[in-house]
Amino acid sequence: MNTNHSVGIVERQYFTFAETTPMQLDSGETLSPITLAYETYGTLNAERSNAILICHALSGDAHAAGFSPDEKLGWWDDCIGPGKAFDTTKYFVICSNVLGGCQGSTGPGSPNPQTGKPYGLDFPVITVRDMVRAQQHLIDHLGIAKLLAVAGGSMGGMQVLQWTASYPERVRAALPLATTARHSPMLIAFSEVGRQAIYADPNWNQGNYYDGARPNTGLALARMIGHITYLSEESMHQKFGRRLEARERFGFDFETDFAIESYLHHKGSRFTERFDANTYLYVTKAMDYFDLANGHGNLMISFARCASIMYLVVSFTSDWLYPTYHSKEMVSALTGIGADVTYCNLQSTWGHDAFLLEVETMTRLISDFLDRVVAHHGINL
Amino acid sequence: MNTNHSVGIVERQYFTFAETTPMQLDSGETLSPITLAYETYGTLNAERSNAILICHALSGDAHAAGFSPDEKLGWWDDCIGPGKAFDTTKYFVICSNVLGGCQGSTGPGSPNPQTGKPYGLDFPVITVRDMVRAQQHLIDHLGIAKLLAVAGGSMGGMQVLQWTASYPERVRAALPLATTARHSPMLIAFSEVGRQAIYADPNWNQGNYYDGARPNTGLALARMIGHITYLSEESMHQKFGRRLEARERFGFDFETDFAIESYLHHKGSRFTERFDANTYLYVTKAMDYFDLANGHGNLMISFARCASIMYLVVSFTSDWLYPTYHSKEMVSALTGIGADVTYCNLQSTWGHDAFLLEVETMTRLISDFLDRVVAHHGINL
Repeated sequence: MNTNHSVGIVERQYFTFAETTPMQLDSGETLSPITLAYETYGTLNAERSNAILICHALSGDAHAAGFSPDEKLGWWDDCIGPGKAFDTTKYFVICSNVLGGCQGSTGPGSPNPQTGKPYGLDFPVITVRDMVRAQQHLIDHLGIAKLLAVAGGSMGGMQVLQWTASYPERVRAALPLATTARHSPMLIAFSEVGRQAIYADPNWNQGNYYDGARPNTGLALARMIGHITYLSEESMHQKFGRRLEARERFGFDFETDFAIESYLHHKGSRFTERFDANTYLYVTKAMDYFDLANGHGNLMISFARCASIMYLVVSFTSDWLYPTYHSKEMVSALTGIGADVTYCNLQSTWGHDAFLLEVETMTRLISDFLDRVVAHHGINL
Repeated sequence: MNTNHSVGIVERQYFTFAETTPMQLDSGETLSPITLAYETYGTLNAERSNAILICHALSGDAHAAGFSPDEKLGWWDDCIGPGKAFDTTKYFVICSNVLGGCQGSTGPGSPNPQTGKPYGLDFPVITVRDMVRAQQHLIDHLGIAKLLAVAGGSMGGMQVLQWTASYPERVRAALPLATTARHSPMLIAFSEVGRQAIYADPNWNQGNYYDGARPNTGLALARMIGHITYLSEESMHQKFGRRLEARERFGFDFETDFAIESYLHHKGSRFTERFDANTYLYVTKAMDYFDLANGHGNLMISFARCASIMYLVVSFTSDWLYPTYHSKEMVSALTGIGADVTYCNLQSTWGHDAFLLEVETMTRLISDFLDRVVAHHGINL
């Protein structure tokens, strides 16, 4: 799927931004200080009009493209770089770790200024709107009055929608991919069993584990559940089928028999090396609370000030976690308020992960869309 | 959905059957003694030709209909009783708890004759074919040469398919409902995370917990994961939506916010009152191993001796756990060998649970089908 033969790896720059003014959260609490870790790719033009903010999903971080010092490629490197969907020869791309995160931004593992120790569960519960609020401070700090685009898939797409609803005057174009305007009960259900898996780990200790053993078993279990939902029945057949792992016949024991089991174990255990269980709790809770129409009752009212924003909405036929009809509801509200909306329901067998895997199609779609945004606004790149 | 106004509750009779001859298992091990708990409803006719065996799913037991001594209705009471789908004024209905079970049949919680203590993980790993082998001994014991029908949904349907493949000469009709001839990688994946949740519970203690605290947290977690998969996205919207539970607004904490969460907690905790975690391990493993074509490579070869059996295959449009195409593959193989197959893909929003919930439609379908089987074979009821 990835045919990046003529495209390159972008230079990655890493920064942190510290906001010391206390930020008011949706919960009513205030939070201070706030640090956001972010990376940038490409160059901000003189008019500061070529900036694109990338928002990451549940398990993502600021490292979206290029190589990190430990030689890891960014999570969306397929789509960010010279000649790629978000072409860094034209655009200045920013990606920040979300508020509540565990990869450089302030989250439950950060020191609580009251105690000097990690917050744990004393960290306030945050929302997607709080994440976007914090990002807006970062965009201020970078001196960018108006983003050319905000883009992201899954939870990243929720931030995209929230950006346009909260700060429509600061966004020219929005790319909500494989996402929803309202976290469904099925999504909440999967979130909650993931959280329960973490609570059940004795090492979790009500969130106070930073001095000792970490709740890696619970976190790995939550991640395994997640990974099932990111695939599709069909892609599991294609990738694994009923293939056995490192044995010729059934073991008639409770060791690993099947390749799909081995894949899940691997994904679960790798995840614990880079992720904090408390962040998993906070970020899934923020997703569960996400309902853009909350308080309005009607999605068109949420988008009332968004008529001048250009949208590219993408869903995937085999994504059963964020089914197509969620995107269609979004598109219907956006066309209702007269926004310029391009909607694609892409045929794919890759399930929810398709937004990361269907690189060729996404590249064509996104780069054509961004060209159109640039032309429409007469932006000098 | 249930409009059982003119139908009654059946008398339930409870028995156990003990087989002392060691039974050879698929694993190569032998097991002895074996007890099967079973219930019967209705009366066996003089010709012993009106017997229907009901096979239960993962979490089921022998108590399929009527009231138990503690006033609990059987799990398929909607469909078994006078005037119901399996009409006990006409048929003699049998339901036994599977081998490996925890509701009266021999399983990992039963005493190991070698030690006098519960088997735990010393219980041999069993297969769906082993379950059916044990049931066949029970049918022998009841003096029934040929069953009028074998019926069941989900794992019950796997047993139905195995019955026809293993003992075609002993079955006139088969009703595999909401099932598959081959456990898919997605099903294996969900099984495995359920098992991992149990392993992760410190009370599980490698299966040795019968003297102390039980791994209820892990078992409840496994059950919660299961319950998500038994519903559909649409039925969750209808049943729960984003409704809050016992609060007017978000709590901004990690207590229960949503009704769907409360439903899962309830289902998880109730399950631990009646189910054994080790049985959960053994039964899910048996399902994972289930692949009727294993060793043949081709489903038609598995059904080679089944041409004279009449089949009613039913799938449900919103069942994403056992999607329609699994049933279609089965039907295609069965028509290929020339069997009499009726196939219905029923429109339903209830997901996998539909086989238990679409009572009206199932009643009509099943009772008409059984009438046709009776007429075809000239059975005197």
